[in-house]
Amino acid sequence: MKKHNFSAGPCILPDEVLKESASSIINFNNLDLSLIEISHRSKPFIEVIDEAKSLVRKILNVPKNYSILFLQGGASLEFLMVPMNLMDINGTAVYTNTGTWANKAIIEAKKLGNVNIIANSSDKNYSYIPKDFIIPEDANYFHCTSNNTIYGTQIKKFPKCKIPMVCDMSSDIFSRKIDINKFDLIYAGAQKNMGPAGTTLVIVKDEILGKNNRDIPTMLDYRTHINKESMFNTPPVFAIYVSMLTLRWLDKLGGIDTIEKRNIEKAKILYKEIDRNELFVGTAEIEDRSNMNICFLLKENKLEKKFNKMCDEKGISGIIGHRSVGGYRASIYNAMPIESVKELINLMKKLEDENIS
Amino acid sequence: MKKHNFSAGPCILPDEVLKESASSIINFNNLDLSLIEISHRSKPFIEVIDEAKSLVRKILNVPKNYSILFLQGGASLEFLMVPMNLMDINGTAVYTNTGTWANKAIIEAKKLGNVNIIANSSDKNYSYIPKDFIIPEDANYFHCTSNNTIYGTQIKKFPKCKIPMVCDMSSDIFSRKIDINKFDLIYAGAQKNMGPAGTTLVIVKDEILGKNNRDIPTMLDYRTHINKESMFNTPPVFAIYVSMLTLRWLDKLGGIDTIEKRNIEKAKILYKEIDRNELFVGTAEIEDRSNMNICFLLKENKLEKKFNKMCDEKGISGIIGHRSVGGYRASIYNAMPIESVKELINLMKKLEDENIS
Repeated sequence: MKKHNFSAGPCILPDEVLKESASSIINFNNLDLSLIEISHRSKPFIEVIDEAKSLVRKILNVPKNYSILFLQGGASLEFLMVPMNLMDINGTAVYTNTGTWANKAIIEAKKLGNVNIIANSSDKNYSYIPKDFIIPEDANYFHCTSNNTIYGTQIKKFPKCKIPMVCDMSSDIFSRKIDINKFDLIYAGAQKNMGPAGTTLVIVKDEILGKNNRDIPTMLDYRTHINKESMFNTPPVFAIYVSMLTLRWLDKLGGIDTIEKRNIEKAKILYKEIDRNELFVGTAEIEDRSNMNICFLLKENKLEKKFNKMCDEKGISGIIGHRSVGGYRASIYNAMPIESVKELINLMKKLEDENIS
Repeated sequence: MKKHNFSAGPCILPDEVLKESASSIINFNNLDLSLIEISHRSKPFIEVIDEAKSLVRKILNVPKNYSILFLQGGASLEFLMVPMNLMDINGTAVYTNTGTWANKAIIEAKKLGNVNIIANSSDKNYSYIPKDFIIPEDANYFHCTSNNTIYGTQIKKFPKCKIPMVCDMSSDIFSRKIDINKFDLIYAGAQKNMGPAGTTLVIVKDEILGKNNRDIPTMLDYRTHINKESMFNTPPVFAIYVSMLTLRWLDKLGGIDTIEKRNIEKAKILYKEIDRNELFVGTAEIEDRSNMNICFLLKENKLEKKFNKMCDEKGISGIIGHRSVGGYRASIYNAMPIESVKELINLMKKLEDENIS
């Protein structure tokens, strides 16, 4: 029996993607070679990376003046690459502190220059998205995090921004409609909606690069990777291949329109149950609730053991909340079928039935 | 029919490793979950990375005062991390220029400080390994490249060195006995003898770190990854897993002793044929010839088309030389069976028979 995989990342991928990946490890494209033992400069792999880029461009409707890159090092390396490429020596960047990862981005930018933290939700354990701030126009760029995986909050409306807007979309890219034109640089670790761990997607408006006054190390310079089409050095072949298959799956399904509807529906029924069920309570502000990571607590700790056991028995996996919030976190990324969400809801109801007279 | 895969990297991996990898993508360890959709912080994956580290320590006999890391970004990012961690601001490092990759390492170090290029074989298109140089004792470190993939040269005897010795072993690590104690930092992209593209092995003597006067970005600081046991950020799960399986295969085979004998034998018979056959000539100085990448030319260009066709028909793949050397390059890494090398030798003989009366 396949598990119901609610893991926060690396996370569930479509079954057909897993099957095709496994098959390509044995024999890729009938070449009588494994995908992972061919040269990254061979025609068959260049076709893979080109298709992956085309699919990103198509699915997210990325304009021509933006480059699409597949890099390594995850969002953590982007925390460094963003200020390295966009912040002047002695320059200032504007950040929002909306969770653990946003904070890590801030720490890294501070090593390179001045950081103006314009909004901060740490006062309430990052349970909400700050709004109503004004972004100064004299900074090098503005940085935000679209979805906070650990705390289950998500920006529903991006602020107006007259300076370059940079966004870490690691945990909700490809889950909903985004107007790329509003952003100047988007980055995302693959291991949520795009593929397995091991590659990082970067979408960058070409014209914002090469404008600061730093001597940027080669591997940290986005222009290196643009010039060499993500092949300056050996790319993470397997991670890019599986990402391409996942994007193909999404495209065939109907793209963002279809998946956004599905994601809203999945989140809606689970939040509805959290709000209805007397045993549970959500942790994020209602208007800022994430449609990807749904965080909730049992009002009575003593029921946790029982509920965990019920989940285990039904094959519900990866649902324990991050230690900084506690309770539960159901990550319901693109590949999560609604049936798995319903299975979880049924268990929540069952727990209530058995414990409230 | 499985091809004879002479690709320079990513390259051939053992068949049993490919089979087990494919199977784990469908169902890993009977968890009813795919390897690539479980959390990197789950017990099953922590066991994988721990076993990978233990195998590196066992196979290479790595002393306790060295840390073993699995990073991302390939040797190309190490070109930056090495000077970032070991070179003082205004410090000097000593490099040898023995090929394209050595030169890229030099370019990166120059961005951070002074580079003293103590030996350089570019005068003869990198066809030999410079010797008889004296390493100054007042530099921060000495850097060399153990095997030059493109030019088919290999350091047979490492120089005496009183300052920290750093070595890029990307293309020959795990192929021969190495006394780790002679080195202070070794790095290697996985995609030759260790696994698929997507992770980088670093072996570093702990005591050399934290001694320079730089504020090192978090992701570029080896101490970050030592402190978090290569889990500071999401590691490249699949690449580490396949590396672990490949190391398991090597260990079962008898470790370095066995593989070194096999590698020497494979190289010996192929070089013997190159030297014997009147149509071919080797490109590297005999005493510096690599046992991993064997570079040779056809004396008469006009036979190339015919020989390429013969190779194609016999399923010999990935044998065209790098554009900067031309001719042929047979990469005969650990997983390459001697039977494939013999197949190539047979074709070389056949070409000679058909063209020399």
